[in-house]
Amino acid sequence: MINENDTVVLIDEKGRKTLVRIGEGIKKVRRLGVFDPGKLKEKKIGEKTRIGNREFIIMRPSVVDKIETIERKAQIILPKDSALIILYCDVKNGDTIIEAGAGSGALTIALANCVRPDGKIISYEKRKDFAEIAKRNIDNAQLGEYVEIKIGDVTESIDEKDADAVILDIPNPWDAVKNACSSLKTGGHFCSYSPTMNQVEKTVKTLRKNNFIGIKTFETLQREIIVGEGGVRPSFDMLGHTGYVTFARKILCVNSATEGFSVEILR
Amino acid sequence: MINENDTVVLIDEKGRKTLVRIGEGIKKVRRLGVFDPGKLKEKKIGEKTRIGNREFIIMRPSVVDKIETIERKAQIILPKDSALIILYCDVKNGDTIIEAGAGSGALTIALANCVRPDGKIISYEKRKDFAEIAKRNIDNAQLGEYVEIKIGDVTESIDEKDADAVILDIPNPWDAVKNACSSLKTGGHFCSYSPTMNQVEKTVKTLRKNNFIGIKTFETLQREIIVGEGGVRPSFDMLGHTGYVTFARKILCVNSATEGFSVEILR
Amino acid sequence: MINENDTVVLIDEKGRKTLVRIGEGIKKVRRLGVFDPGKLKEKKIGEKTRIGNREFIIMRPSVVDKIETIERKAQIILPKDSALIILYCDVKNGDTIIEAGAGSGALTIALANCVRPDGKIISYEKRKDFAEIAKRNIDNAQLGEYVEIKIGDVTESIDEKDADAVILDIPNPWDAVKNACSSLKTGGHFCSYSPTMNQVEKTVKTLRKNNFIGIKTFETLQREIIVGEGGVRPSFDMLGHTGYVTFARKILCVNSATEGFSVEILR
Amino acid sequence: MINENDTVVLIDEKGRKTLVRIGEGIKKVRRLGVFDPGKLKEKKIGEKTRIGNREFIIMRPSVVDKIETIERKAQIILPKDSALIILYCDVKNGDTIIEAGAGSGALTIALANCVRPDGKIISYEKRKDFAEIAKRNIDNAQLGEYVEIKIGDVTESIDEKDADAVILDIPNPWDAVKNACSSLKTGGHFCSYSPTMNQVEKTVKTLRKNNFIGIKTFETLQREIIVGEGGVRPSFDMLGHTGYVTFARKILCVNSATEGFSVEILR
Repeated sequence: MINENDTVVLIDEKGRKTLVRIGEGIKKVRRLGVFDPGKLKEKKIGEKTRIGNREFIIMRPSVVDKIETIERKAQIILPKDSALIILYCDVKNGDTIIEAGAGSGALTIALANCVRPDGKIISYEKRKDFAEIAKRNIDNAQLGEYVEIKIGDVTESIDEKDADAVILDIPNPWDAVKNACSSLKTGGHFCSYSPTMNQVEKTVKTLRKNNFIGIKTFETLQREIIVGEGGVRPSFDMLGHTGYVTFARKILCVNSATEGFSVEILR
Repeated sequence: MINENDTVVLIDEKGRKTLVRIGEGIKKVRRLGVFDPGKLKEKKIGEKTRIGNREFIIMRPSVVDKIETIERKAQIILPKDSALIILYCDVKNGDTIIEAGAGSGALTIALANCVRPDGKIISYEKRKDFAEIAKRNIDNAQLGEYVEIKIGDVTESIDEKDADAVILDIPNPWDAVKNACSSLKTGGHFCSYSPTMNQVEKTVKTLRKNNFIGIKTFETLQREIIVGEGGVRPSFDMLGHTGYVTFARKILCVNSATEGFSVEILR
Repeated sequence: MINENDTVVLIDEKGRKTLVRIGEGIKKVRRLGVFDPGKLKEKKIGEKTRIGNREFIIMRPSVVDKIETIERKAQIILPKDSALIILYCDVKNGDTIIEAGAGSGALTIALANCVRPDGKIISYEKRKDFAEIAKRNIDNAQLGEYVEIKIGDVTESIDEKDADAVILDIPNPWDAVKNACSSLKTGGHFCSYSPTMNQVEKTVKTLRKNNFIGIKTFETLQREIIVGEGGVRPSFDMLGHTGYVTFARKILCVNSATEGFSVEILR
Repeated sequence: MINENDTVVLIDEKGRKTLVRIGEGIKKVRRLGVFDPGKLKEKKIGEKTRIGNREFIIMRPSVVDKIETIERKAQIILPKDSALIILYCDVKNGDTIIEAGAGSGALTIALANCVRPDGKIISYEKRKDFAEIAKRNIDNAQLGEYVEIKIGDVTESIDEKDADAVILDIPNPWDAVKNACSSLKTGGHFCSYSPTMNQVEKTVKTLRKNNFIGIKTFETLQREIIVGEGGVRPSFDMLGHTGYVTFARKILCVNSATEGFSVEILR
């Protein structure tokens, strides 16, 4: 049954999604018009319902639904890249993850979904306006209790110690490598998401001079496959580029621990 | 500190990884020769250690380390695809996930890492020899308590009800769509991984005739980026293809609930 | 110097191109307004000129300029695919090439540019309206003397014999394989461009049953690289798919000449 | 009929190719053993023939056959990239093309095939050993009369004027931009092939400061599609990267002709 405190996603015939909190009272909602979400309490999950003159399927929102329906201010990290970051940084229940910047909170939502119930995301954001949007989006996604947003700049300082991962989406990640290293526990995961090759180059070279091993950068291309009347083909629509994702792992901070020890796959 | 019951990963200069259980006693290990893992108890995580005439960094294994070091019999689902499956199927703590076939257990390890501590993976495998390898790999990855492997064929039957997701890597996923639908809770996620376009076509057409919405198929290409002396460039090595991943979501099983309701992104 | 009979391309600040025939008289031209091309005779190639209140560089049109400025009715074959077709079909001065269908004439222009001065393109097109557009585009590209457009269906018949190549962009290329084989000289090149995997499958299987070897299908993805202030990165804009291109080569039409002889790279 | 002066390609069951000159006398040939090519004069083009205990199809070599069978010393420019270079540089009968370096002559062969019978390739190469291999490969491809190989460094000087295109595959193309500009006719095409992003950045920035417009860089990915018993899928084998190809076009060399005139597609 659907309750007062639930959030549901309404999916229309074209797959477009609208996130709605049951208890939020009558309000104007995009694609729905003026509308009282309370009426959905009579409905069942998975049921087709009519609102105005349009039909929707009611679903409990998945993490991808939550990401796809956020209010966007900055460019977000897309699911294909979030997915890779989560697996390669081994994000899981109980982890403490440092993230910067929060942006619109898309990656934060994906991370918070993984660390619950026992973990925590600490998300640094320099800009107050972004921090507010991120907070609103994370609360709408019902993940607020697992996230702390801090106004701050990780290239200046990171308060937390023994972090399981430090994940950066900032213009100058190389300037945060030393702070990330101090904040991470031994064996912790560093990750940086950057759109340009020049950022990758500077970050990787900085990581190599610090106590990191297993430094690897990936580019991921994703294409939808269309099953049509005429046959199967890739979609004509495709995003040509999002960002490069660099991963590394902190080793014991002893002088020259990694001397002569690159630990990259040299192809 | 490293304990008797721990498993560690030893990473050499070229990034090659060896998984070792501390308490398993003297034995012959690939890349290490005859060797007593017990001696590693004196070491610290993140430290460089010498075994024979070679040097290694000792780490606690991440989920990617666990996947990369499994014994492989069949073609495995790679991290880039596992990552996408986990995010799009919203796999998280507490979930009950049906998987088939287990294969060598690579995806099983990635899934089990996400559902703990409260969830469970039920992994069907037709072939006894694969089931045994999968079991060994999952135990080595210290995730045995979250996985049940069953000898069985999901195109014939799936015992469990109210599953959060059914994830298939079998040659004929379309033959398991009806059973997947019965096994899934409303709103649950269907996923199928297949190497050929023909498999995608049959599966998608079968999903459309059943109670599924949001049917989408993705192809993901991953390339490593190399930061070298001469500059930054993509790696020459790249896997041209792994498999297409199809996602769908079960709606309420009422007759004609989805009549005239395709819910795919029509581009 | 620019002459009465010349065609020039005017390129604006954003790289947009307009093809203009010097002798065509005052007329309304897209992006230029009402305008007398005759005035360009005073100008030099490569010079910056002002027309109305906008500036342009005058150039002799390259083959890519000619393709990019055609009037489009149907989806055209893009330069990345034309380029591959030309090289793999070994299109060169003196060749006789059969093409179907002409469409808007984009590929025809690329082919005609290669076979001159001694070769010829015979381009079949079923639809009269397409044939007219193609003719107009090819004439504007000053390549009319190397092209003959025929109203006809290559799945029914191809008049010419001893063709150097038969290049198909039709919905059912498999139905034209036998006619293509009869039309080609021994050693001649077959090529088919198709958007779906199903078309590729049917065409390849038909080629294998006929007198063809070296059957290979390629997919080509092209991405622009942007050098910006912030660094170098791939363009966000990218076409996710155009078509698959299948190549094959005719061998001597003796019964069972290729029996047990597949001549494909089996990987 | 096959004559004393012909060169043929022998294609085996796996698609492997061997280039043979009929008149070269008995010699040891890779995959054929000791063998007299003169015996092939009795054969027909397109026929299946037995040599030793293996079977081959005899063909006249296409330009791709010629490229695929060259003796390789350096990394060659592959057909997918050659094809793009030829189309975007508008290489055609009668053109004068400057190329550097010759390398093993793979691109030279592709270019020479296009400019004949009236054009010419002038190929600069610094290293004598590469020049000799290139010469041998081009002669084997029966294209020697259209190519002049010069020992020299295009970053120091280019002798020729009014070239239709200057095409560079050298480590420091930016150092040759001024010489290329002097050598090109107005409207002529500049092209540079480079493996790293850093090379692209330097070259593009140098072109922007000189008299070039329409500066564009492309990356092309090519994948084979396999039609197998189990269905259609992309090949697992794929080259992850070759080189980025930058194109530009020379405008009239008047001071500040392009002031405030970038002519790039700004996306």
